[in-house]
Amino acid sequence: MGKTARELAEALGLHLEGDGNVLLRGVAAPERAGPHELIYLDAEKYAARAQASAALCAIVPEAAPLPGKTLLRCTKPKAAFARAAALLLEPPLIAAGIHSTALIAASARISRGVAVGPYAVVEEDAFLGEGAQLGAHCVVGRGSWIGSGCRLHPRVTLYPGVRLGDRVEVHAGAVLGADGFGYSYSDGRHWKFPQIGIVEIGDDVEIGANATIDRGSLGDTRIAGGVKLDNLVHVAHNVEIGAHTVIAAQTGISGSCVLGHHVLLGGQVGMGEHCTIEDGAIAGGQAGILNGKTIRSGQTVWGTPARPLAKFKEQYAWLGRLPELAERLKRLERQILKP
Amino acid sequence: MGKTARELAEALGLHLEGDGNVLLRGVAAPERAGPHELIYLDAEKYAARAQASAALCAIVPEAAPLPGKTLLRCTKPKAAFARAAALLLEPPLIAAGIHSTALIAASARISRGVAVGPYAVVEEDAFLGEGAQLGAHCVVGRGSWIGSGCRLHPRVTLYPGVRLGDRVEVHAGAVLGADGFGYSYSDGRHWKFPQIGIVEIGDDVEIGANATIDRGSLGDTRIAGGVKLDNLVHVAHNVEIGAHTVIAAQTGISGSCVLGHHVLLGGQVGMGEHCTIEDGAIAGGQAGILNGKTIRSGQTVWGTPARPLAKFKEQYAWLGRLPELAERLKRLERQILKP
Amino acid sequence: MGKTARELAEALGLHLEGDGNVLLRGVAAPERAGPHELIYLDAEKYAARAQASAALCAIVPEAAPLPGKTLLRCTKPKAAFARAAALLLEPPLIAAGIHSTALIAASARISRGVAVGPYAVVEEDAFLGEGAQLGAHCVVGRGSWIGSGCRLHPRVTLYPGVRLGDRVEVHAGAVLGADGFGYSYSDGRHWKFPQIGIVEIGDDVEIGANATIDRGSLGDTRIAGGVKLDNLVHVAHNVEIGAHTVIAAQTGISGSCVLGHHVLLGGQVGMGEHCTIEDGAIAGGQAGILNGKTIRSGQTVWGTPARPLAKFKEQYAWLGRLPELAERLKRLERQILKP
Repeated sequence: MGKTARELAEALGLHLEGDGNVLLRGVAAPERAGPHELIYLDAEKYAARAQASAALCAIVPEAAPLPGKTLLRCTKPKAAFARAAALLLEPPLIAAGIHSTALIAASARISRGVAVGPYAVVEEDAFLGEGAQLGAHCVVGRGSWIGSGCRLHPRVTLYPGVRLGDRVEVHAGAVLGADGFGYSYSDGRHWKFPQIGIVEIGDDVEIGANATIDRGSLGDTRIAGGVKLDNLVHVAHNVEIGAHTVIAAQTGISGSCVLGHHVLLGGQVGMGEHCTIEDGAIAGGQAGILNGKTIRSGQTVWGTPARPLAKFKEQYAWLGRLPELAERLKRLERQILKP
Repeated sequence: MGKTARELAEALGLHLEGDGNVLLRGVAAPERAGPHELIYLDAEKYAARAQASAALCAIVPEAAPLPGKTLLRCTKPKAAFARAAALLLEPPLIAAGIHSTALIAASARISRGVAVGPYAVVEEDAFLGEGAQLGAHCVVGRGSWIGSGCRLHPRVTLYPGVRLGDRVEVHAGAVLGADGFGYSYSDGRHWKFPQIGIVEIGDDVEIGANATIDRGSLGDTRIAGGVKLDNLVHVAHNVEIGAHTVIAAQTGISGSCVLGHHVLLGGQVGMGEHCTIEDGAIAGGQAGILNGKTIRSGQTVWGTPARPLAKFKEQYAWLGRLPELAERLKRLERQILKP
Repeated sequence: MGKTARELAEALGLHLEGDGNVLLRGVAAPERAGPHELIYLDAEKYAARAQASAALCAIVPEAAPLPGKTLLRCTKPKAAFARAAALLLEPPLIAAGIHSTALIAASARISRGVAVGPYAVVEEDAFLGEGAQLGAHCVVGRGSWIGSGCRLHPRVTLYPGVRLGDRVEVHAGAVLGADGFGYSYSDGRHWKFPQIGIVEIGDDVEIGANATIDRGSLGDTRIAGGVKLDNLVHVAHNVEIGAHTVIAAQTGISGSCVLGHHVLLGGQVGMGEHCTIEDGAIAGGQAGILNGKTIRSGQTVWGTPARPLAKFKEQYAWLGRLPELAERLKRLERQILKP
């Protein structure tokens, strides 16, 4: 690969300033960059760091000066840099060709350009879309569907009937489609509730290492396109997550929660069952959202139980003022209640 | 498989109303059910939903009307439905027969009807009970014991010396018997404390995907029969968990805690070392139980540090009233302290 | 193996009292010990338990009496016991020799005494140091470096370019080097930020089961020597962790945090991005450290948002006193505001 600064500018709609023929072969942090590696500058205060770089070309905000370098100006340099990187860097190969030790059921349908790593297992009636790559030790259960361009890193496990859209990336150790945690108590023990739904994942979803997404019980678990789930996230049975929602590491979502699109959950957030998080709502790290609660669109919540951020901050400030309030109360008492 | 409504009624002690010859071949949600799939109705408010279903037969509470359908009446419809599902549905096959790529040590004892999936590894002196199924890539360490009817989904790892009772189900990616996290600090570094105990799991336990249960250090880690652990739960060395206790996702239990039977821990609960949770106690989601604490039988706690739920709620309510209290204080001050 | 009490005393600098010829072949808890298994006594109050043991030899504090046994006295019996165990017990073998099903790239460099378990995959240009043991189903990505004496339990996954120092122990299911969770939002979707750094782990590090350590984005993720990470810990991209820091289970560290040496994080701690935890600082279980915060050297913090422990305790105590304060306020009001 490799593109000129001009080619990048045209592909991404950036404003080119300086020598458009500079060849770019990769991306790097300013300190590590060679001449042909693209860097970016997010805020003017980092300009000296960028200036000192060996890189010949930088993506920069509208106003930043950076004399002597080829500049690609735009309003969101970090996003442009991310997109430029996708054009400059081939994603690392997870597998090449179908390894001789991969076990692929006769009834599985394998599209063109599929690669399957060593010791991977693809069960009956599974479908692997064009150019999909499966790493070593992946298990694709009966009747699963893997869309075009999916990338499953080593030892991803899909239980039977899991459906991935196109260009889904799943990191090592993630488990999709395990039984939901549903029991009904009677006669002193817990009877397992049937877990016979499926998991359906949209296009362009990324799922972190060792994350777990359970299958639906009688319904399905559904994750829409563009969703990003970090490592060790847990998504329970029958949850629905809207498009482009982002969920940071170790967050857990209980059964039957519904999240809108463009929701943002910090790390270690916990959600009880049957919560509703409307579009664009935000929950800060470690927030605890009670069973059945609704977080309104655009709202930001924090704390356990989760409450509007402003309220949390106000309460927290009052907590800090308690010694002073007590002192004032005591003073009044001294005045009033003297014997 | 397939059973008539009458057969189900007899097997489960339900009161049959209507045509007992209706044949049932599965279970479903009302909206998805075909005529021969059993549905259930938990509360009368959902009656319209059940009435509109194509299903011919429903499990219903004592009083619910549902004209035109065969009804199986009982006091706990959801539990009865779960038990009916277990009679109607064969659990999905994890493996069939012993795959030619499974590596089974010569000294391992394999009972009748055992199935072992591709690339699984069973080490020396392990025992696999009658009808046990092991998925692809499972590893059963030296001297482990797998009881009858156990179901290990793909890539479950048992370190040496782990013992499972009968009918234990372990989901993909769970790790049983890893070394406990025990060190002793001296001379500027942490010396690993010996982790030479075992893990012992009772009958009918279910363990979620990517959960981790550490082996004992000098003693053992013990989980009694009927316990249910959700995904990503962590159980440290030397923990003891009593029968039929239920622990939701991402909860972590530190070393040497003792939990009674029928305890209920919500998701993301954290327990310090050497805690005691007595029979039937409940900890709400994200509760944090301090080192060495005891939660009494029947008590419900919440918050960090965990306290009785009523106290938590009261404190939380007071927190919300602080602005008002401060306002009242100010008013008094204005009256009393005027110059 | 097997050592006499005298040999142990000399190797560890303990004060021998009694018969130095007692042969020791292992370690155990007092109740389980046979005559030739070493026990220890941490505090005098447990002396009766130790006295009743069949063990012939015990490591004990300076003053403890334990008539009839061979005693090894020192100031830190537990640490001495841990070190003695390391001398008496051979760590359990993870693999012996190179299994015929292990797939090792021709360009990988394999040092003397390396053992690789069944179905493990070692990719091109990887290096395995002297005596390293890799369990079944491990995956060692292209160009990774595994130092001497490393122990990788079954199905550890190293993405390409992960570097482990010497004597690193990694438990089953851990994933090192997965892509960091970095995106830049623009035009309604999240663009993946390049994740092209590496993971570098120092000597004598131990990493728990199903833990995840992400690779750096443009920089690297670095964990220094002697660090201990418990199960299900999450370390994000570009994090740096100083020597001998200990992190308990399920703790999550967001991108670009810097932790000093000898830091101690309890379980389920959450850290926002770009935090700094100075040397020797402590965060209690479930503490939540906000983005960009600094915890000073030697400080102990707790709560969310994390604050000094003394402050947390004080605030918590005030919270408990609110009903009383309100009562006192009411009493004043009655006096002052009577009609």
